Amino acid sequence: MEGTIKCPANYVPLTPISFLDRSAVVYADRLSVVYGSVKYTWRQTRDRCVRIASALSQLGISTGDVVSVLAPNVPAMVELHFGVPMTGALLCTLNIRHDSALIAVLLRHSGTKVFFADHQFLQIAQGACEILSKNGDKVPLLVLIPEPLTQPVSGKKNITMEYEDVVAMGKSDFEVKRPTDECDPISVNYTSGTTSSPKGVVYSHRSAYLNSLAAVILNEMHSSPIFLWTNPMFHCNGWCLLWGVTAIGGTNICLRNVTAKGIFDNITMHKVTHMAGAPTILSMIINAPESEQKPLPGKVSFMTGAAPPPAHVMYKMEELGFSMFHSYGLTETLGPGTICTWKPEWDSLTREEQAKMKARQGVNHLGIEEVQVKDPVTMRTLPADGVTMGEVVLRGNTVMKGYLKNPGATKEAFKGGWFWSGDLGVKHPDGYIELKDRSKDIIISGGENISSIEVESTLFTHPSVLEAAVVARPDEYWGETACAFVKLKDGVKEVSAEELINYCRDRLPHYMAPRSIVFEDLPKTSTGKVQKFVLRTKAKALGSLSKKSVSKL
Amino acid sequence: MEGTIKCPANYVPLTPISFLDRSAVVYADRLSVVYGSVKYTWRQTRDRCVRIASALSQLGISTGDVVSVLAPNVPAMVELHFGVPMTGALLCTLNIRHDSALIAVLLRHSGTKVFFADHQFLQIAQGACEILSKNGDKVPLLVLIPEPLTQPVSGKKNITMEYEDVVAMGKSDFEVKRPTDECDPISVNYTSGTTSSPKGVVYSHRSAYLNSLAAVILNEMHSSPIFLWTNPMFHCNGWCLLWGVTAIGGTNICLRNVTAKGIFDNITMHKVTHMAGAPTILSMIINAPESEQKPLPGKVSFMTGAAPPPAHVMYKMEELGFSMFHSYGLTETLGPGTICTWKPEWDSLTREEQAKMKARQGVNHLGIEEVQVKDPVTMRTLPADGVTMGEVVLRGNTVMKGYLKNPGATKEAFKGGWFWSGDLGVKHPDGYIELKDRSKDIIISGGENISSIEVESTLFTHPSVLEAAVVARPDEYWGETACAFVKLKDGVKEVSAEELINYCRDRLPHYMAPRSIVFEDLPKTSTGKVQKFVLRTKAKALGSLSKKSVSKL
Repeated sequence: MEGTIKCPANYVPLTPISFLDRSAVVYADRLSVVYGSVKYTWRQTRDRCVRIASALSQLGISTGDVVSVLAPNVPAMVELHFGVPMTGALLCTLNIRHDSALIAVLLRHSGTKVFFADHQFLQIAQGACEILSKNGDKVPLLVLIPEPLTQPVSGKKNITMEYEDVVAMGKSDFEVKRPTDECDPISVNYTSGTTSSPKGVVYSHRSAYLNSLAAVILNEMHSSPIFLWTNPMFHCNGWCLLWGVTAIGGTNICLRNVTAKGIFDNITMHKVTHMAGAPTILSMIINAPESEQKPLPGKVSFMTGAAPPPAHVMYKMEELGFSMFHSYGLTETLGPGTICTWKPEWDSLTREEQAKMKARQGVNHLGIEEVQVKDPVTMRTLPADGVTMGEVVLRGNTVMKGYLKNPGATKEAFKGGWFWSGDLGVKHPDGYIELKDRSKDIIISGGENISSIEVESTLFTHPSVLEAAVVARPDEYWGETACAFVKLKDGVKEVSAEELINYCRDRLPHYMAPRSIVFEDLPKTSTGKVQKFVLRTKAKALGSLSKKSVSKL
Repeated sequence: MEGTIKCPANYVPLTPISFLDRSAVVYADRLSVVYGSVKYTWRQTRDRCVRIASALSQLGISTGDVVSVLAPNVPAMVELHFGVPMTGALLCTLNIRHDSALIAVLLRHSGTKVFFADHQFLQIAQGACEILSKNGDKVPLLVLIPEPLTQPVSGKKNITMEYEDVVAMGKSDFEVKRPTDECDPISVNYTSGTTSSPKGVVYSHRSAYLNSLAAVILNEMHSSPIFLWTNPMFHCNGWCLLWGVTAIGGTNICLRNVTAKGIFDNITMHKVTHMAGAPTILSMIINAPESEQKPLPGKVSFMTGAAPPPAHVMYKMEELGFSMFHSYGLTETLGPGTICTWKPEWDSLTREEQAKMKARQGVNHLGIEEVQVKDPVTMRTLPADGVTMGEVVLRGNTVMKGYLKNPGATKEAFKGGWFWSGDLGVKHPDGYIELKDRSKDIIISGGENISSIEVESTLFTHPSVLEAAVVARPDEYWGETACAFVKLKDGVKEVSAEELINYCRDRLPHYMAPRSIVFEDLPKTSTGKVQKFVLRTKAKALGSLSKKSVSKL
């Protein structure tokens, strides 16, 4: 159009780096990071990030390189989320529950050049480097992140640098590298090890920027929120909240070990306003001994996701004073992609109806353009009738760029111009989606689909049940039956398998009720998701309940 | 990067149209627009916008065309902000204070094809069309916007369609046109300047999208705010709040005539949460007779801008229960570009010191990348010492695309990769900017820019006037009014101040005419230039024309 141009005055590639630059001015003297007695302001945080970028550049890190980190929610994690992208490189945050073997695989796959490791996970990091070395692979430069303000730790084999050496060698006047194209990559997040071949999910500066703003709005954050980190920063870059909190000059309260006591202590000490976390964290909070619980100093918004939280858990949290949001997303959607937005007209529903409404995964947030339920074969959009089940698909600017070095998987995930989530669900007439299962978690018994989530929800309503996970158990007659793995609450009345089965039969169609119950601690991923593939293997090992020659049902 | 791609699954050109699509689902049954007894939900609003787009397409409107509207804050304005861009065309919102002559100039310059005119301004619209017709210019299709739910108005000369005819002829299944490039234009806003060279400020879908989100965050809006429209929707597309309110499913309370009674009545009736407006509106509120004031039902956020509000006005507003934000921007920055973000450390300052802090224009919001004070000659950034004065420059994604059909002006405005505001100011050591002088020729009266040059040109046409210089005179109600210093020719008939004022009123929009005339010899520099700073001091000494308790506008 005549008279209009695109130039540096009116076009700046979107990047979260802008958030830090701005907050270092607007919120210069406000706290950016608090970790015990360690405290930084936004001015200081920017300075430290620039120095880290400068040091990494001196160490040869440049555009397109990968820098990895293995650490819990400590201040270095906040800084690396800016320091690494400021060199043009990608940040790869590794899952702290991984072992050396898997870490080695990921370091090799990503081509990591510099590897930051927190002292608590140093041995795992060193083990991974040794594996690489033995296999003749390139070993990254290992940088130790010690506990701040403490003496050097032991076991510093192969360690040539410590974190503060990196900060010290950097220069404050380093010219920060910004993306020339806003679709350039900013980070790679490996999907939690629920499958054998990990996939490196690549985020762009643009998607990170837009998802951060969507997260700020979604979480109803005002200027300078106090955010307590109980969701792992290494997962989806902290659901993009690391960058989001920076955008509005909030304070990151870091917590190495997430415990009920730590949560309540930090909430009251720092007047926390916002939190996020998987249902595991909710269980931890509502089951905390009374001696550890403290009354909340004010409203605390809590965004939960990763797995549908049981209704009674949501209620209990709200009774404690938390304001609950239920969201749904995947690593590929940069964390939450939908939110179960509350409708005022639900205020008049019964508590049970409300719980039903609230358990739905909801509607796309501002970063996601559209969410649909489609037939995975025909790729047709299915009717929004609350009944017709299909695969949940999403598209929008806050969907990943693709899987690192895996064009085949990328192509498959994006077929037809949508991201295929692998989750099965329905769309209700009001446009809200509701998950029924992971496609691989659905149980098919005698030709009927059993939603494991529905069975689990029923088990959760039993007063003695703390956790429950339901998977398919192979069956010679039925094909599959539902098998429940259950962890009981401490100090409650013992219940038998039969009692729980009958409890479910009273509340569910007969075919849906589990036929077998196993009492044990549930295996979980680092993000608190139950590792159903482990349970499926166990269920398989149990063998069939029915004989082939069953004559009577 | 290997394995990553850009496709419809992960890249959608940014556009405010996405906001409406999403809100029609997420906030389907919540009120989008309220205007007296006229009420729409978001589902209905989207349907009406799609129909309008469909009808405009049928009328031949397509990508790059311009559709203009001359209307106050009525529901049609909300709908046209989506209906027009949904055809690929640009929306041009005209200033309702312009006269037919100026409107004709803008219709011709923009190449307007369809022209919507509210019944209140029908004669001006018809006058403009007649001027075009007489000059042999193409006359746009004129569509009358009648008062909703009332009988047709008289004086329907040249009117072939009414607004609801357009809605009715459109189809709900029209395929909405979205920008192929997010930098495609969405609107054009003419700066109220000289008639000789009007500047049409072009906004892009991308800048509108990003500024809307920045505005939502800046105004601390949560889900479903209730927004009372007291800033004109025709200015900077309502400071982008029209699109911003849509993004979070808020309710637009429309108000044709902004009066103190209307404001208080609507705040209490609809439980308004957010407002915005020029200092004129603040004066109106604080000077409202007690009989019209009502206690606020809750916190009402109020963003003011356009001119620095006097400290006592801000205090009075806060005493009434409004939560005040002071922002600064220009049409070229899509409205507010900086905000005087409050710092907690100011809490302990004296009231006077606080007022000083609050009167500053502040720091860039999230859409603007950077704001600096530069030497207009050397283009060097000046020290942030609170003393060194220079020109305020901004750059970022929420800066205009340029001036329509005026590449020269665009190039000049963007020299060196910055937008040069024409405003003089300083930057303080804390990074906050403060205007010291509006660009010297501009007078801001009731939120409208008055070019002193234009007024002077008119005065010069009077047979008795030898010299004239127009400067701002501070005014308690209007902020500023035009004050003319005039030297009459020797030996001519004496003219009164009233006569000259009337002379200007006959030839200029009413608000542009001077409100006071001072007869005297003009002070000049050695090179013969009028020393306007001397006159400004004199005008200031004259004091305000309006009383605080203005009861009639």
